[in-house]
Amino acid sequence: MTRSLDRLSLNTATLGFQWPLDRVADACAKQGLGGIAPWRRDLAALSPEHAARHIRDAGLTVTSLCRGGYLTHRGPAERTQVLDDNRRAVDEAAALGAPALCFVVGGLPQGTKDLEGSRAQVVDLLRALHEHAEGTGVRLAVEPLHPMYAGDRSCINTLASALDVCDAVAPDVGVMLDAYHLWWDPELEHGLARARPDRVLGWQICDWLVPTKDMLNDRGMMGDGVIDLSGLDRLVAEAGYDGITEVEIFSDDWGRRDPAETLQVCAERFLALS
Amino acid sequence: MTRSLDRLSLNTATLGFQWPLDRVADACAKQGLGGIAPWRRDLAALSPEHAARHIRDAGLTVTSLCRGGYLTHRGPAERTQVLDDNRRAVDEAAALGAPALCFVVGGLPQGTKDLEGSRAQVVDLLRALHEHAEGTGVRLAVEPLHPMYAGDRSCINTLASALDVCDAVAPDVGVMLDAYHLWWDPELEHGLARARPDRVLGWQICDWLVPTKDMLNDRGMMGDGVIDLSGLDRLVAEAGYDGITEVEIFSDDWGRRDPAETLQVCAERFLALS
Repeated sequence: MTRSLDRLSLNTATLGFQWPLDRVADACAKQGLGGIAPWRRDLAALSPEHAARHIRDAGLTVTSLCRGGYLTHRGPAERTQVLDDNRRAVDEAAALGAPALCFVVGGLPQGTKDLEGSRAQVVDLLRALHEHAEGTGVRLAVEPLHPMYAGDRSCINTLASALDVCDAVAPDVGVMLDAYHLWWDPELEHGLARARPDRVLGWQICDWLVPTKDMLNDRGMMGDGVIDLSGLDRLVAEAGYDGITEVEIFSDDWGRRDPAETLQVCAERFLALS
Repeated sequence: MTRSLDRLSLNTATLGFQWPLDRVADACAKQGLGGIAPWRRDLAALSPEHAARHIRDAGLTVTSLCRGGYLTHRGPAERTQVLDDNRRAVDEAAALGAPALCFVVGGLPQGTKDLEGSRAQVVDLLRALHEHAEGTGVRLAVEPLHPMYAGDRSCINTLASALDVCDAVAPDVGVMLDAYHLWWDPELEHGLARARPDRVLGWQICDWLVPTKDMLNDRGMMGDGVIDLSGLDRLVAEAGYDGITEVEIFSDDWGRRDPAETLQVCAERFLALS
């Protein structure tokens, strides 16, 4: 496959939030990338509207906004709080012109051990948020997270499980695919067939290091780990996804390096995928 | 459910291998436990035959031997080496009178990214080992390991995937269930139905701590984490498993404490499960 950098988007967490969003966008454009996926924290210093204009003027596409989520809760008061915050996330995604809002749905609320109950809360909240998002152009993207986050970050840990949530919410709700979370799953191909391309709202890559020293911030640069990224990318493409690929690396290592260097290595490694 | 300690077995790794096997067995008996699951390293200082006699004389049952495995390999020479070592493991299990030899099947061999190929190697080696085990009374138990070990320890990461391996090897090959590896899986109940009780060769418990500070040696004592152990135990029982429950905690914390104290806490926490 011949790759070109305009098919690559940068998730801003990859650069460790060392630069403000406008500077990151300029650097992405200079590197030749086609897109950018900001985080809500990027929008604290630059309003979504200003960010949207800056990104568009730089010649980039916004591929998604990170992130809504942590929907699981301990009762009505917390539910209201969570819902309010996530409605604001939808509004920010809309103002930013993001086609998708990525959700890390939340794990077990403190003091509970009820995974099924947590999953039901996720469906409940996404239904309310889906209603809020109607007409905004923002689609909700459920991201299945690696099973090692089931306790504290996400009770949705496989593509199949994420699609169950989508099915329960609305036809236009989709999934965010991340190689880091899904590479091990022997059912991935079935999940991709079930997702159909129109429910795949994004495709994120990085690598799994052996050994992994930290469960959150030790992701690897593409090529430095054990994930067959070329093979997975082929699967995702064969399932019909023809959108942009987003690099998202949470790493204490890469997040502290010179952002321009990291960006350049991301570009080189993306192009090197067969 | 009323629990009694004779339905509890101790996996010796839980005590951090601070004591020789005979002393651990005596302590288990004193605590009122019904079984013990040694590791091969325990048998370096006490032959399987002597260990078998000591354990029997102490009034305990051997529930399994830990462990065979690391079957994935980089070529014929390594395959022969792996096969030889695992044949010895089968022989040791037989001499110990263990009804099952537990397998941690191995992850990706160094330099490869081929999960499917690794899984095929596991089936190949288990077929050869199954032949070797014939007539010994030792059954091969495939243990699905948590997906966070897919790179370096086990390419079999769900009960469904382990049962696929069993299906491909022989009808009397079974699975070792471990709450730590399986608790997050929404397909667990389906897997248990498919396993039928006669393929469940063991049921191990411990807890998942939040946060988990180390991917290998930060397992929790039952009750200290987020796993709904009572619920899982019910599922396993409803699937027809009526064998003993084994506590297996890999923990830098518990493995350094006074073994007698750890054993006592294991017993208390087991009895406290509803």
